[in-house]
Amino acid sequence: MIRRRKTRAIRVGPVTVGGGAPVSVQSMTKTPTTDVEATAAQIDSLARAGCDIVRVAVPSPEAAGALAEIVRRSPLPIVADVHFDHRLALAAVEAGAAGLRINPGNIGSREKVAAVAAAARERGVPIRVGVNAGSLEKPLRRRVEGGELSLSEAMVESALRHIRLVEDLDFREIKVSLKASDVVTTVEAYRLLAKRCDCPFHVGVTEAGTIRAGTIRSAAGIGILLMDGLCDTIRVSLTGPPEEEVRVARRLLQAMGERRNEPILISCPTCGRTSIDVVGLAEQVEAILERIHEPICVAVMGCEVNGPGEAREADLGIAGSGGGAPRGGRTRRRDARGPCGGRGVIFRKGEIVRRCAEREILKVFREELDSLLAQRGKTQD
Amino acid sequence: MIRRRKTRAIRVGPVTVGGGAPVSVQSMTKTPTTDVEATAAQIDSLARAGCDIVRVAVPSPEAAGALAEIVRRSPLPIVADVHFDHRLALAAVEAGAAGLRINPGNIGSREKVAAVAAAARERGVPIRVGVNAGSLEKPLRRRVEGGELSLSEAMVESALRHIRLVEDLDFREIKVSLKASDVVTTVEAYRLLAKRCDCPFHVGVTEAGTIRAGTIRSAAGIGILLMDGLCDTIRVSLTGPPEEEVRVARRLLQAMGERRNEPILISCPTCGRTSIDVVGLAEQVEAILERIHEPICVAVMGCEVNGPGEAREADLGIAGSGGGAPRGGRTRRRDARGPCGGRGVIFRKGEIVRRCAEREILKVFREELDSLLAQRGKTQD
Repeated sequence: MIRRRKTRAIRVGPVTVGGGAPVSVQSMTKTPTTDVEATAAQIDSLARAGCDIVRVAVPSPEAAGALAEIVRRSPLPIVADVHFDHRLALAAVEAGAAGLRINPGNIGSREKVAAVAAAARERGVPIRVGVNAGSLEKPLRRRVEGGELSLSEAMVESALRHIRLVEDLDFREIKVSLKASDVVTTVEAYRLLAKRCDCPFHVGVTEAGTIRAGTIRSAAGIGILLMDGLCDTIRVSLTGPPEEEVRVARRLLQAMGERRNEPILISCPTCGRTSIDVVGLAEQVEAILERIHEPICVAVMGCEVNGPGEAREADLGIAGSGGGAPRGGRTRRRDARGPCGGRGVIFRKGEIVRRCAEREILKVFREELDSLLAQRGKTQD
Repeated sequence: MIRRRKTRAIRVGPVTVGGGAPVSVQSMTKTPTTDVEATAAQIDSLARAGCDIVRVAVPSPEAAGALAEIVRRSPLPIVADVHFDHRLALAAVEAGAAGLRINPGNIGSREKVAAVAAAARERGVPIRVGVNAGSLEKPLRRRVEGGELSLSEAMVESALRHIRLVEDLDFREIKVSLKASDVVTTVEAYRLLAKRCDCPFHVGVTEAGTIRAGTIRSAAGIGILLMDGLCDTIRVSLTGPPEEEVRVARRLLQAMGERRNEPILISCPTCGRTSIDVVGLAEQVEAILERIHEPICVAVMGCEVNGPGEAREADLGIAGSGGGAPRGGRTRRRDARGPCGGRGVIFRKGEIVRRCAEREILKVFREELDSLLAQRGKTQD
């Protein structure tokens, strides 16, 4: 339903970014790059979590030295993250990086940028121009402080300057990121730049915060830009394990309809009508669904009154049975969400197909899930 | 920075919704309404978490009977959630509900709707027209199935029909919600309706799922509509404790610049450059900040190289010191995020003001925070 912005396609190893390719998920290793074992293990773990492209910091010659072995072991294409020193960028390309993240403006003279672009061109390595609101060039920062430009406008000017710098060297394999820790500024910057170039966008909200706060800020910021069709590749940035960044990113893509081959679980927020342990059941069903890669919609709903109807789009659903008006002015159980004596129903596309005791419900759900998957020629594992 | 849609203002008890009033936060009790003690306790807890308006399910005469005492004890205005039975709506108004959430189309005859509107008008109680994609009127559903209307268009038609039904009774204290479990459909529906009425919007993504998945879907869906300026009051819907719904909602509002009197914490995602325990420090700083109600921006950054610069907007920040190139091809510590022997800096607006050992850093941070708050005439508690 979302119309994507038209962008040029570039390739990061085997992954196409832009040109209408599926929105890819990136993360970044948080191990010291010089620790090859730890970094390779983290990349493996990221690949299992569903990461498409992994970025690795290359802050030193030693890190650049470790990169070749990391690349050799990695199941994912690696983007080398380099600041300031163009020799590190050259070394990273030499080591087999599938992409470079640099800020051409802080790499130094035109000759240095030209050397990096030449090496990248020879190896078919794209460059991400990464503009960060916190490290804008001084002249632009002064124009922001003077009220001449908004922060987002200044970020766009910086990006365009860097894009021109590289394109003047006849290098066009460019994607762009515009990161601010403020969601609204980030969104405004991407929206402005979208009108002024066709480079694919790497989208993220930087310094997003702890897992909880960062999930909220990233889901809002990236979600807005997904709805606009402006994301070609995304990074959820969390102060936490990188695998969690990937999980949040994938769930966000799925929520926005950009990953169609995964199950989706909807569950009601529960209310005074709830007659089964919705929270517990939803968590358990979520765990069951994590091992299935099939576009199936599953619902866990508190009550039979609203559940099957409100979740009629669900291929398969669970609802509490006998909710609604509690008897004698109290519910039959003090704790309406205790793991005990309720009853439930299983429904398909709004129609109740089975009834059972609450303690049986997961078993019955699995049976129905098996049968649904079997109809599609799939299994639960 | 976000321009809000112009809407009529209505009042839910002491809370103004629409007309440019701050975006308010709603949640819903998940206790049996007939259990007055449990429900009153949950409302108190929601108030402490920062909830502005609380909704209570009224599924039975017994629940309606309990409502008067719940209202009497509640520090928050209560919206009664009623389906089908107009007598429950009348009883809820009688019991002192500050608002009604009904679906005029399923309350029954025009006379019944008129009776509810008359009672609501007399008590100054607004009505929320709550359209849910899962329970659309059959004729509209058929038009969707026949391909004549999209689901979002059908939701809008349903809302307009209900709004007209109530406005024809000369009742205008109306807010509207359009909920679908699908984010894109929800967003499209609100965007369409925004052009066709001036009723304030209650925005949420329904059946959003477990805390993790639901946070992502709600932050994306509500975030998009906050950016559009279309939210007047919001509900984050989670299969989990209602207090968590409120915390997520408030963080989202803050992230979108809609709550300016709260601290904001930015923290870097950590990378191979990190030399302190950023994750642990960020979590601890977040806990310290939860007790402060002052618009202050705090940063926790992994390295001195990028940290103070990238977070120059922070009033106060922590960064690791001595990161960057690890010595001898390894970091000095195997686990770069262990709670041990690193060093850190404290910075203000990008300028380093103190240096200390990592184990001292929280103590030093608190001192600097105290001094910053003292300058503003505030304290940490």
